[in-house]
Amino acid sequence: MKTNTQQWSQTDQKIAQEALGKAYARETEALVAEINQKASQITHINDIWALNDYLNSKRYHIDGKYYSSDATSMFVLAQLVKEKWLTLDELTGLTPSTRAKVAALAKMS
Amino acid sequence: MKTNTQQWSQTDQKIAQEALGKAYARETEALVAEINQKASQITHINDIWALNDYLNSKRYHIDGKYYSSDATSMFVLAQLVKEKWLTLDELTGLTPSTRAKVAALAKMS
Repeated sequence: MKTNTQQWSQTDQKIAQEALGKAYARETEALVAEINQKASQITHINDIWALNDYLNSKRYHIDGKYYSSDATSMFVLAQLVKEKWLTLDELTGLTPSTRAKVAALAKMS
Repeated sequence: MKTNTQQWSQTDQKIAQEALGKAYARETEALVAEINQKASQITHINDIWALNDYLNSKRYHIDGKYYSSDATSMFVLAQLVKEKWLTLDELTGLTPSTRAKVAALAKMS
């Protein structure tokens, strides 16, 4: 399966960028809510270091997904669909064969 | 000024250990209160990454002070006095010359 981005149309790239932006907003808003909740339960220094470990891990994964990857990578879109930060409906408008590959990767990954 | 610990009596070491324990409890309790307060103001992902950076820095410094150093190091005691996690009164019972060195280092450091 070809998954490089050189075959993507400008429309595909625009749709993918917008979808990534939506997923990023959702994932980071969910993290803000989660941290507010976790932080309200902190009573001991060990809770703080556990929160610190958790944030380091989250940052590594979020930065890896949204910044280090090619913004139009099918793998990233598929991962976000799998994680439910995006729906396949939000990728409507992508070249059908490209969207089908994202859907297939989301099931496989 | 000799500051190694081989000259310390067992009483000195016991007093220093207890003082370090007190300082650690105070400093970490203050950090818990501070993080509770900071965390309640988090509204955006950038606030979370700023908190993460702050915790990484705090952990580095706290671990460095309380775990990596010799527990009876005059330098650590002097630093804690300077930072107000300990008072010189709490080092009463130390060999007077040792206590005087800690006091002198606290002013210098």
